[in-house]
Amino acid sequence: MYGAVIHAPGDVRYEQREDPQILAPTDAIIRLAASCVCGSDLWDYRGINPVDQPTPMGHEYVGIVEQIGNDVSNVKVGDFVVGSFFASDNTCEICQAGYQSRCEHVEFAGAGGAQAHLLRVPLADGTLVATPGIPDPDLVPSLLAASDVLGTGWYGAVAAEAGPGKTVAVVGDGAVGLLAVLAAKQLGADRIIAMSRHEPRQRLALEFGATDIVTERGDDGVAKIKALTGGLGAHSVIEAVGTQEAMMQAIQSTRPGGHLGFVGVSHGVNLPGEELFYAEIHLHGGPAPVRRFLPDLIDRIWRREIDPGKVFDLTLPLSEVAEGYKAMDERRAIKVLLQP
Amino acid sequence: MYGAVIHAPGDVRYEQREDPQILAPTDAIIRLAASCVCGSDLWDYRGINPVDQPTPMGHEYVGIVEQIGNDVSNVKVGDFVVGSFFASDNTCEICQAGYQSRCEHVEFAGAGGAQAHLLRVPLADGTLVATPGIPDPDLVPSLLAASDVLGTGWYGAVAAEAGPGKTVAVVGDGAVGLLAVLAAKQLGADRIIAMSRHEPRQRLALEFGATDIVTERGDDGVAKIKALTGGLGAHSVIEAVGTQEAMMQAIQSTRPGGHLGFVGVSHGVNLPGEELFYAEIHLHGGPAPVRRFLPDLIDRIWRREIDPGKVFDLTLPLSEVAEGYKAMDERRAIKVLLQP
Repeated sequence: MYGAVIHAPGDVRYEQREDPQILAPTDAIIRLAASCVCGSDLWDYRGINPVDQPTPMGHEYVGIVEQIGNDVSNVKVGDFVVGSFFASDNTCEICQAGYQSRCEHVEFAGAGGAQAHLLRVPLADGTLVATPGIPDPDLVPSLLAASDVLGTGWYGAVAAEAGPGKTVAVVGDGAVGLLAVLAAKQLGADRIIAMSRHEPRQRLALEFGATDIVTERGDDGVAKIKALTGGLGAHSVIEAVGTQEAMMQAIQSTRPGGHLGFVGVSHGVNLPGEELFYAEIHLHGGPAPVRRFLPDLIDRIWRREIDPGKVFDLTLPLSEVAEGYKAMDERRAIKVLLQP
Repeated sequence: MYGAVIHAPGDVRYEQREDPQILAPTDAIIRLAASCVCGSDLWDYRGINPVDQPTPMGHEYVGIVEQIGNDVSNVKVGDFVVGSFFASDNTCEICQAGYQSRCEHVEFAGAGGAQAHLLRVPLADGTLVATPGIPDPDLVPSLLAASDVLGTGWYGAVAAEAGPGKTVAVVGDGAVGLLAVLAAKQLGADRIIAMSRHEPRQRLALEFGATDIVTERGDDGVAKIKALTGGLGAHSVIEAVGTQEAMMQAIQSTRPGGHLGFVGVSHGVNLPGEELFYAEIHLHGGPAPVRRFLPDLIDRIWRREIDPGKVFDLTLPLSEVAEGYKAMDERRAIKVLLQP
């Protein structure tokens, strides 16, 4: 098969690779219906994460089960499935508490590289969720979004306790931030402030349910959020970037007693203890336990209640994956869908 | 009147001061029945917080209302009252959400110095809670504890979501840590692990409801908590120190999805974002909104359900306040009660 491999920062190649094999009786092999490029892939592409050796890329996937190990019983060959970037047994105490991304037997489901034709998914029973049938093609992008960016934005909104009566602010206008807006809306938030200075992203935020757009950043952004909330700050803030500036902006935008859900993968962040202490907020975040939300998210997509697939504003054949990275790196695209 | 004034690190004096006056119609003057020395007073005493000028000390207080401003209606002259170290209106949106320590009109109630005979308490209506009558003398230490250390330990336990089915670990064996043990027990926790290497404090922890004592600190302490919790970490961890080591120990002792309540006043702490991200825990803390808990805590004390006053293991006349600081600084006393 062919798939994407990163060789160095800025150097992603579509090249021939070994077909994946069943390695453990709990594995499944799926034939990808679609894959995509993640904001977090750009950390490698931009050289912020080191690239030590040629590495298969991609960790977001939907597709049809092609082969299963002897111990797999929750999905069968021919099922259309959605899975999370973290494989989980979904039975351990941590999974049962809803933290499948920290499963006692967690494995990175993207280890084999999902920007490819085939993917081996470990712990298939606890990782994959079958859709009610083979989806209409127009549902595929939304189901693919559920695999990571929707699940992650949703987790951010849940961690921030977005809901009725709440004013929610979202820091970050990437796919995760935009889908956090969608999640906050679905969870019933009264008011949703999207922080974005990019017109196409602002438009999508409004479409997903944002009621206000704030273009300011840093201290000015915080001042604007305070001005919009009677000087108090938002009840719920979702951080979907992962930088020091974004985290501080998010902390300072949250009112005392409020909730900050942080889902941007943290890079070089150091939180000053004293400021955090006196901020008196709730913090919760980390890699999203997407598996917790998948059945509900698939259901909402299947019933066409939500259309998170709109974050894909560029579709390319998998063979043009390099252009996909380039378009996202240059912010010409919010998110790139790849068709194997 | 006389009261305690710090002149420099290590130099606390009992000296004559002006009697406090009603300055605003929302003030009350109380005649102190008892006051005490707080672990946080030691930050000044040890020169970790700068002492720029002679400063009246003390922010924990119980006593009898001696005078009220024209706008005070919730307490009257002659009432025995307990108040928090932060004065709050208890009516603003933040107070109503339970965060009186971040009241929109918050003032430091200890500004006048509670280690004295008289204290002016601002925002008396929203700060002071009257007891059902004049307490028996043996209840006074417990009511005094409610003013800060009990309220703070309780907040830590609530922030850590201590309760039925939970294993709770407490980092810090000062008065706040010990009372966090008491709080976790009252809130119904199954198992309470106190981290302490001091025999008298261990004994008090066990008396307050601890089921296990861990004497190790740092990485060894974390390993011990993991060993006691099937490798997962505690569901609920309360941090009651405020140092980098204690915070990291607390973070690492919390299982994924678990809750960390941090109430030790943060000094020189910097939290590494990446570790926090992958820890996948809930964090909540800050200066305790003691006022939220006061009615319930006074009720439990009044009905003699709890005896938090046991943390006072040294009682001195107020005139010997300097010795009180010395005894706490040298860890000869857990907490010193001062009798005006």
